[in-house]
Amino acid sequence: MTRTVVNINTPPPYLTLSRQERLPTVLTIAGSDSSGGAGIEADLKTFTAHRCYGMSCIVALTVQTPSKVYNIQNTPKKIVKEILDANLKDMRCDAIKCGMLTSDAIEALNEKLIELGSNRPKLIVDPVLVATSGSSLAGDELVDLIKTKITPFADLITPNIPEALRLINKGDYKIQSIEELFDIAQELSVETKCDNILVKGGHLSLDQLKDNKIIDVLYLAKENKFFVYSGNHEPTCNTHGTGCTLSSSIASNLARGYSLPQSVYGGIEYVQNAISIGCDVTKKHITDNGPINHVYSIEVPMEKMIKDDCFAGHSIVSAKMSTKEYNAQAEKEIKNNFFEYLIKHPIVKPHWDSYINHNFVKQVAEGTLEPRKFQFFVEQDYTYLVDYARVHCIAASKSPDLADIEKELVIVGAIKHEVSAHQDKLKRYFGIKDDSYFSTMKRGTALNNYSRYFNDVAKRGNWEELVAALTPCLMGYGYALITFNDSIKLNEKFPYYLEWCDVYRSENYTNAMKEGVALLNQIARSYPFDEIDTLVKIFADVCELETKFWDAAVEFEE
Amino acid sequence: MTRTVVNINTPPPYLTLSRQERLPTVLTIAGSDSSGGAGIEADLKTFTAHRCYGMSCIVALTVQTPSKVYNIQNTPKKIVKEILDANLKDMRCDAIKCGMLTSDAIEALNEKLIELGSNRPKLIVDPVLVATSGSSLAGDELVDLIKTKITPFADLITPNIPEALRLINKGDYKIQSIEELFDIAQELSVETKCDNILVKGGHLSLDQLKDNKIIDVLYLAKENKFFVYSGNHEPTCNTHGTGCTLSSSIASNLARGYSLPQSVYGGIEYVQNAISIGCDVTKKHITDNGPINHVYSIEVPMEKMIKDDCFAGHSIVSAKMSTKEYNAQAEKEIKNNFFEYLIKHPIVKPHWDSYINHNFVKQVAEGTLEPRKFQFFVEQDYTYLVDYARVHCIAASKSPDLADIEKELVIVGAIKHEVSAHQDKLKRYFGIKDDSYFSTMKRGTALNNYSRYFNDVAKRGNWEELVAALTPCLMGYGYALITFNDSIKLNEKFPYYLEWCDVYRSENYTNAMKEGVALLNQIARSYPFDEIDTLVKIFADVCELETKFWDAAVEFEE
Repeated sequence: MTRTVVNINTPPPYLTLSRQERLPTVLTIAGSDSSGGAGIEADLKTFTAHRCYGMSCIVALTVQTPSKVYNIQNTPKKIVKEILDANLKDMRCDAIKCGMLTSDAIEALNEKLIELGSNRPKLIVDPVLVATSGSSLAGDELVDLIKTKITPFADLITPNIPEALRLINKGDYKIQSIEELFDIAQELSVETKCDNILVKGGHLSLDQLKDNKIIDVLYLAKENKFFVYSGNHEPTCNTHGTGCTLSSSIASNLARGYSLPQSVYGGIEYVQNAISIGCDVTKKHITDNGPINHVYSIEVPMEKMIKDDCFAGHSIVSAKMSTKEYNAQAEKEIKNNFFEYLIKHPIVKPHWDSYINHNFVKQVAEGTLEPRKFQFFVEQDYTYLVDYARVHCIAASKSPDLADIEKELVIVGAIKHEVSAHQDKLKRYFGIKDDSYFSTMKRGTALNNYSRYFNDVAKRGNWEELVAALTPCLMGYGYALITFNDSIKLNEKFPYYLEWCDVYRSENYTNAMKEGVALLNQIARSYPFDEIDTLVKIFADVCELETKFWDAAVEFEE
Repeated sequence: MTRTVVNINTPPPYLTLSRQERLPTVLTIAGSDSSGGAGIEADLKTFTAHRCYGMSCIVALTVQTPSKVYNIQNTPKKIVKEILDANLKDMRCDAIKCGMLTSDAIEALNEKLIELGSNRPKLIVDPVLVATSGSSLAGDELVDLIKTKITPFADLITPNIPEALRLINKGDYKIQSIEELFDIAQELSVETKCDNILVKGGHLSLDQLKDNKIIDVLYLAKENKFFVYSGNHEPTCNTHGTGCTLSSSIASNLARGYSLPQSVYGGIEYVQNAISIGCDVTKKHITDNGPINHVYSIEVPMEKMIKDDCFAGHSIVSAKMSTKEYNAQAEKEIKNNFFEYLIKHPIVKPHWDSYINHNFVKQVAEGTLEPRKFQFFVEQDYTYLVDYARVHCIAASKSPDLADIEKELVIVGAIKHEVSAHQDKLKRYFGIKDDSYFSTMKRGTALNNYSRYFNDVAKRGNWEELVAALTPCLMGYGYALITFNDSIKLNEKFPYYLEWCDVYRSENYTNAMKEGVALLNQIARSYPFDEIDTLVKIFADVCELETKFWDAAVEFEE
């Protein structure tokens, strides 16, 4: 009989800064969705993902999955009332979110709201009247009850378009254009006696959208103001629970002290991410209406613990099991020359090819690019290089030893040199006189996307992932110059084109590229085979971002 | 009427690596706790915090808060059965966690388990029979039902001591010593026909504990093995929901693919953190049995968005409202000389004083420290300095501009120099010959705690917080040498003591200290007044960690 003793760590010291933190608290009054995608389950998940403390008042148990509602059992008014009494007596409550309500729940809540008077928590009402599919979930009586007993107390109501129309007694009306949302919001405010209205435009058909944009309209009656939230329409089948989640996210943000326009903003962003990331939790026969991913931004506690150098449990918690099928040939290629493996890999190759054969470099080599486009590029690249230096600093911090740290810092030094050269070029050739110009240059979209990507990898990735993200920039510039080497010629009017080319075909640069290849190979020798795909994906992503960076220069218009 | 248009971002690119990630799924079968601290609410929070997808089968609605159970209403067997049918038909289910069960739920689950046969998900049973307070929650009949119909199917059961005794029909027995837990676990395995047993020792009284350690015992019958998890006893009144949370955390880890000993380890760590961090969510008249903090490690989505340079909503989402009361005198002192403000601050001063008046420096100055203790210090400090360099790299990455980045990199260069000097010292005076010695030196507890703190601040903190964490090391060594300057004398037998002192009173070092003070003051000029307390707390924490680092050297025994 063996006995293994394992020590339990105390919490990390910095975490204890938040000891006895006053968590914002939010109560959901709604039905339970047993399959977890909507109802109080979605609400509690959302509160948790927002670092809030969730409470529940379950007004009905529904037996449901994304495929259908199998059964429903309402909670007696007495129990609903007792829950509201107990929670509001013993627990702090910063915000209440209402979802699907029964007439019993409406009565009980109405009595409570009257009793609380001006002491009532913030109240966000998601009037669940019409399901995403369009079928009505509430009779006319219930709609009237909500309008007379609940919405006049609400700080915000969040109907979708069918619900909005139902609430203003125009259930059969068909909206023709986005402009009508503004009138509907104002009508709703009068009809529901609620000052703040969020009309969710997600139900508009594709041909009703402007530029393929989904619009949500927030109307603040007291200030006579509209906020229009404009997001991309994304084709998806993960939509189960979006309404519940949005109102819960808004309630969480309000409980945390954000203003209404801010809270709505955060809520829409959260839902947009949760929808587009999705999760794969239904069985195969369910092909539609899958749940959204409430946990997309949460790190697994066990993985966090394992990353902690001082974690006491390393002896028993080893790496996870492999999920990638082993392939001896692939492993051989990886260990032999990882860089070659990468640029030939099917998910990298198209992006690598369009990167190193880019028209931008061709035009620079030939000296035919419009100078204004080149100036735009140099300015964007200047800002990029500062970000690039930062990410190398993070890579340094994650390097295996002091020697690798030093290598990274040498690179940062080289980048600083390149930044100065860019400044110099802008001053010499493009008439920039004032140094303050450099801190006020505008960031373009391609630069922004690239920087966000770096930020994300730096925050979440390990050293190897960072190296995979940093290498395409180094290698691609060199390879592109090889591609167009024979086209390079001096344009005497614009000597900076040849100057630029000479940097990336210099001996210095070629040596740096050799070191880049060596580093990739060093990494590949010890990296777990079943995690190599993450490095491949990152390398491919960054080649694509590089291509778009040059696209932006070629396509630049004043 | 104004209209403000705000754009919604697509998710950050790196996040989309996990698009359509196959989330592990866990189903809880238990009662609902309306106040959110225990029951399916605690379970769903735990699944969410573990990046798992949660589902629920609510077997009873309880009206409760941490103060008492006000009412309870069981769910009819028909509904329980329908929920189990629907969830297992339409949803993937990797693990099931059972909490409080009713006899209807036991029957329904038993039928389902038989029907599923070998296809059943992992089953973790928390036999909720006896509340933390000691009062019985289940009659003998229910205990028998659980033992015959549920536990024989379970992959793990997780009773506390009173529940364990109840399950082996010794409800009135009083445990005398920790050793008995091992026998009880074995008896339980036979009696419940379950191979794997976790007996939770949290109910032992303080005088029954060895060295104040709480013990949990995992018994694996098939392998005839015990794992003993040993954690510090922490006085706390946040204990509502610990049992529910532990079994849910274990179920989440199992669903994610970790082994049973690993999953239990992760579960205990999670609960230990959640207990000791706590949250403040009850009204003031509730003084006991408060909920634990399920969300301690979750970052607020809105704060993450705001940190994203490319977040489109900066125009409407500005900083949060101030919560700290404004104090003009304090602000004046902060802006005038932040370093002086810090070392005089009541929460810093005791730690700063014990740091700069430390006996270690006194004994080094006088040349009276035992050489073996000094060697231990130099070895620990060598390892510390490598960590210190890494954190400076992260600080560089977060610096406001290239000039500040370069300042940090100069410091990293100086640290590298100090590391070489340490190596040199160990070789010259302490007979170290082989370079491999330096990579195999053992990390002591004080070093580990200090490094964990750095890791945490580096990961979560901003540039200013990092500077606050990095400065005490720089300033304290200089100040300690000033304290003991008059005692410094050469011990010819141990010349390295004087050498060491000379480093930290050199002109170079004094200049570095001046730059440190200037940097603190630079930060204080623009840092928001209501967030200054975080910097103060960090500075105080690190002074304490420095003191303990020297304590460890003085107290070192071979």
